[in-house]
Amino acid sequence: MSQGIAPFRAIEISHLARKLRAEGRSVIHMEFGQPSDGAPAGAVAAARAALDEPDMGYWESVPLRQRIARHYADQYGVDLDPQRILLTCGASPALVLALLTGFAAGSRVMTARPGYVAYRNSLRALQMEPVEVECGAPDRFQIHARHIREADPAPDGLIVASPANPTGTIIPPAELADLAAACRERGVRIISDEIYHRLSYGAETHSMLQYDPDAFVINSFSKYYGMPGWRLGWIVCPPDLVAEARARLGNLFLSPPALSQQAALAAFDCEEELDARVAMYRRNRQLLIECLGRLGITDIAPSDGAFYVYASIAHLTDDSLALCKKLLEDTGVATAPGLDFDPERGARFIRFSYAVTTDMAREACARLEAWFGNNAWELRS
Amino acid sequence: MSQGIAPFRAIEISHLARKLRAEGRSVIHMEFGQPSDGAPAGAVAAARAALDEPDMGYWESVPLRQRIARHYADQYGVDLDPQRILLTCGASPALVLALLTGFAAGSRVMTARPGYVAYRNSLRALQMEPVEVECGAPDRFQIHARHIREADPAPDGLIVASPANPTGTIIPPAELADLAAACRERGVRIISDEIYHRLSYGAETHSMLQYDPDAFVINSFSKYYGMPGWRLGWIVCPPDLVAEARARLGNLFLSPPALSQQAALAAFDCEEELDARVAMYRRNRQLLIECLGRLGITDIAPSDGAFYVYASIAHLTDDSLALCKKLLEDTGVATAPGLDFDPERGARFIRFSYAVTTDMAREACARLEAWFGNNAWELRS
Repeated sequence: MSQGIAPFRAIEISHLARKLRAEGRSVIHMEFGQPSDGAPAGAVAAARAALDEPDMGYWESVPLRQRIARHYADQYGVDLDPQRILLTCGASPALVLALLTGFAAGSRVMTARPGYVAYRNSLRALQMEPVEVECGAPDRFQIHARHIREADPAPDGLIVASPANPTGTIIPPAELADLAAACRERGVRIISDEIYHRLSYGAETHSMLQYDPDAFVINSFSKYYGMPGWRLGWIVCPPDLVAEARARLGNLFLSPPALSQQAALAAFDCEEELDARVAMYRRNRQLLIECLGRLGITDIAPSDGAFYVYASIAHLTDDSLALCKKLLEDTGVATAPGLDFDPERGARFIRFSYAVTTDMAREACARLEAWFGNNAWELRS
Repeated sequence: MSQGIAPFRAIEISHLARKLRAEGRSVIHMEFGQPSDGAPAGAVAAARAALDEPDMGYWESVPLRQRIARHYADQYGVDLDPQRILLTCGASPALVLALLTGFAAGSRVMTARPGYVAYRNSLRALQMEPVEVECGAPDRFQIHARHIREADPAPDGLIVASPANPTGTIIPPAELADLAAACRERGVRIISDEIYHRLSYGAETHSMLQYDPDAFVINSFSKYYGMPGWRLGWIVCPPDLVAEARARLGNLFLSPPALSQQAALAAFDCEEELDARVAMYRRNRQLLIECLGRLGITDIAPSDGAFYVYASIAHLTDDSLALCKKLLEDTGVATAPGLDFDPERGARFIRFSYAVTTDMAREACARLEAWFGNNAWELRS
């Protein structure tokens, strides 16, 4: 029953990184998209207070759903019935829920390659067929309306992420509108993964709901809100599929973590702290891109948002996993091999997450410069 | 894409109960299998301490997996490689993971009816076919070896729960061994839902792993350990399917809640507090059964374990949902209609959860006696 579901290579790197750390090595974790600063102080305080309350059972927070709905009004000007919002244990089960609610077995769902590994693998695990479109620099590594219009046959669905993982590229509003129009023309149901919203460094992030009220939108508290280990995400369901999604939610997943819901509600009031982090990520991004430039690593996807740099290392190696391992062993800098995101070309790419402190980013750059200076010849040979 | 996935009626009752409570009514929650006492003190203290630590990212606790493995040695004499244990956001995704790892789409999986509603619905949501066997009092509401031996064709899988939900019945060791043997004879893969283990009032609970080392076993911290809202469960995988299960886990669900893992590790050291609760449940069970007896509700499944009484109310009504709603509205006692567990006969059954304090159980009995005294004629008419 394998159906070609590959493990995360980044998890392999992470295990190695933890092993090195346990041995007393200094490790800088840039392998996962995981903010090193954790939950904002207000969220932690809310969790601490909630620990004293008895109501920690199977439970879905109505105030949190209302607060999320208000966020769509404030951020995107989208009026949303809180009933359409379902809370999940992170964005991963939200994707599973969207797929199982929106698509029958055997459905063909288009995604960009490179893309988040779980799109391909979850589709396969759920008996659906990923239709991967190889996207490169000219496409800004994203699906465009023409991919939908030219597809033969049209896919049943589309998973789109802006800002994207692993590249960070953002789809501008006019293109997002055109993409939604193309999907409407051809009857393609959209799942919009907006988990990296609020993390952008120039371009604005727009919600697919502004252009397609019938899209599934998934999001979580793991990125901008800094709460990955709290396992709390949400899904906005198309109005006509809310009841079906809710029935699946109860059966497949039951309810999200109680404490995390209390903390997440408070996280909405921590924007000052969280926006300061975005400013920090912006500095880290600049440091990293400049550092890579000095090392001759200049073929980089436009890192408009998220907290990733996806860089070609084709001139150095065609085995990114080996390079990531050696880099980690030699320097303690953990990175993700592109193979997770693109089984074809990913052996020549590497992803850095700069969701670390600026001190860590600076130290990582120093280690990278020393190491690439010494090893580049060896990698090329 | 409905595929006949029904919502939980108990959730409907629960929403009504919360609404009444918000209006200032005194509500006794017996509709969910949700311990009213919450996490044990030691677990809450561990969570409080962990809130001060930074390591709240995507993370799976190796010490917790080792501690769970040790529990299998202590409790069942089963030697288990901790690698075979995967941590999940509750038992629900553990079931999804077992189904997707163990079975191809279209597989036929046998379950007892009455049974936990998510078995049937999750099978359907994952494109598998539930093969429900109507089990009654003579079978103690459980699948027996003969059901497997006589099935034509043999099913691909079996989901078994002992203690069971909604009945609480326990399968004695000799029968469990025979059931495992029958499954081995006919090539039936077993998923053993052991979520109600350590909650028994006479009969001992044995793990399916004692009889079938290749069974999937699922369990969680939601019942005996009193931590339903912490969303932490586990799955023991057959040795040859560990890698496949882990690949699916990473893609479909990523990681379990970080804080809950810290708390759960401490919960293993809270046996004194937790066993005192089991003693309380035992008293509640006695109170409830005696109370129902006085009301003429005597057709009750043997409540060997868990914290449920599943009672026939066939002599009163053939609309258990209406009865549960009216009972709740009139008395504030929330219960689950049998329809969640048995779409055929469940309209004539009702499930009580006695995982409440003894004061609550006593008060519930008083309200039941007053109400049934006044209303029984009306229900019959």
